Amino acid sequence: MRTTAQNAELALLLEVAGTPKPGNVDRHREYDDLRFEHFLAGAVGAREGLEMAADGEPLGESFRRAIEGMSEQRGGNTQFGAILLQLPLVAAAGEDDRSLSPEGATAVVESTTVADAAGFYRAFEAVDVAVDEPPEDMAALDVRRGSEAVPTLRERGLTLEAIMEQSADVDDVAAEWVEGFERVFGAAERLEALSGPVADRSSTVFLELLAERPDTFVVTRQDRETAEEVRRRAQAVLTGEESADALADELVERDINPGTTADLTAGALFVALERGQDV
Amino acid sequence: MRTTAQNAELALLLEVAGTPKPGNVDRHREYDDLRFEHFLAGAVGAREGLEMAADGEPLGESFRRAIEGMSEQRGGNTQFGAILLQLPLVAAAGEDDRSLSPEGATAVVESTTVADAAGFYRAFEAVDVAVDEPPEDMAALDVRRGSEAVPTLRERGLTLEAIMEQSADVDDVAAEWVEGFERVFGAAERLEALSGPVADRSSTVFLELLAERPDTFVVTRQDRETAEEVRRRAQAVLTGEESADALADELVERDINPGTTADLTAGALFVALERGQDV
Repeated sequence: MRTTAQNAELALLLEVAGTPKPGNVDRHREYDDLRFEHFLAGAVGAREGLEMAADGEPLGESFRRAIEGMSEQRGGNTQFGAILLQLPLVAAAGEDDRSLSPEGATAVVESTTVADAAGFYRAFEAVDVAVDEPPEDMAALDVRRGSEAVPTLRERGLTLEAIMEQSADVDDVAAEWVEGFERVFGAAERLEALSGPVADRSSTVFLELLAERPDTFVVTRQDRETAEEVRRRAQAVLTGEESADALADELVERDINPGTTADLTAGALFVALERGQDV
Repeated sequence: MRTTAQNAELALLLEVAGTPKPGNVDRHREYDDLRFEHFLAGAVGAREGLEMAADGEPLGESFRRAIEGMSEQRGGNTQFGAILLQLPLVAAAGEDDRSLSPEGATAVVESTTVADAAGFYRAFEAVDVAVDEPPEDMAALDVRRGSEAVPTLRERGLTLEAIMEQSADVDDVAAEWVEGFERVFGAAERLEALSGPVADRSSTVFLELLAERPDTFVVTRQDRETAEEVRRRAQAVLTGEESADALADELVERDINPGTTADLTAGALFVALERGQDV
């Protein structure tokens, strides 16, 4: 049997192997500076941090270690959001089988500390992540400040849960953290109910998630209008009005990457693997 | 920095990601019952055994553990030969950086014991591997007997090195073991000398190895004539007379898998990664 950390790593690998996944790197599409093999190396490098989380070590330090390991390749940010999304699920699954539930994952989120928030900020020193400018009253907590923000976190007593709450309206990974991972568990159930190879199921679930809500990573890098267009066109793929492959080619051409939807897909794959989905 | 075991796992992943690799599963080609994701799960599952070898644990037990982990997927034998090839290299690299050399790897091979041979035989219980019928006087040592062959190994005092010597004329993985991993180190140098993404280099080195000598896995599953045809046509790809993609499609169609050449490629990738090849 694979361990919890092995399932988390495999979920990252299966996510990038699924194709087509319009706009994102997959086994048939890549960018010159962000290639398929960067995601392979990112997943391999993340494993130690994933093991730490599964073993009950503090989430912030586990995250920092996972992101440092992920960054040992030249593509830059490959799976930052996916790993952030996975960690409370991995920690819950590491406790016992029954804890891998909305309640179990929420209990992990609620137990995070200021030290976990500090680990999260330190992780940004390992890799460039596309983020919005923070509101003016939050400038001291701009994640790009990395460990320089730690004194402010301590002064204000902000836990990692509190940080996620502040981002939940602009980042759907943070929203999952504070809303019981509702979309992830829902997507895992749909993935389990589908038939066929798991990488193909993963591509289907990706499209369903993309059609559900505008991707917040697209909102951050482009704008809300573009994210809404992508959502609408993913819906058109599901109803057969558009070709998934053509949409994938077009979005890669336009450099539009629905990365948050890929993160949610990786989370759903992890949950399904832990529940016995075979490969 | 990635650990030695991480580099070994990543080498397995990069090997299957390189395309085209005529006849083998790669990110653009797969069989219905042997798919790309089986190789991802195989690599993830092998990691613990690879770590054991890097930490200096006995090679036979490390191999058995790696193969059991590799087999936690429905595709069957994905990387048996590649892991067998990698293990002495991983053990040598685990000692110190200078030991990752033909001499260092040979010293590991020469230090193998009868217990290592037993671990090798036990590994065959986890997975079906295509092998030739043994000669009549070797029937007691047919690898398919698994642990039932162990008493015979003990009676005859056969180390894992001795077992590899007996197979070296029909299996080029065994030949590497007893000939100082000459082709692997040569291929690693060529891989390092090429430019471009590492997965593309890996595809080039695969074709060069394939053009060099008939693939012994093709000899085993088909016959020597087919293996020689594949060698000649790989040569034709290198000189521009044939298309690599067309050859890849044809060999998959004919179910001809030059698996030994893939194993050598994975070994070369591991050596290059350990020597600092970036991804």
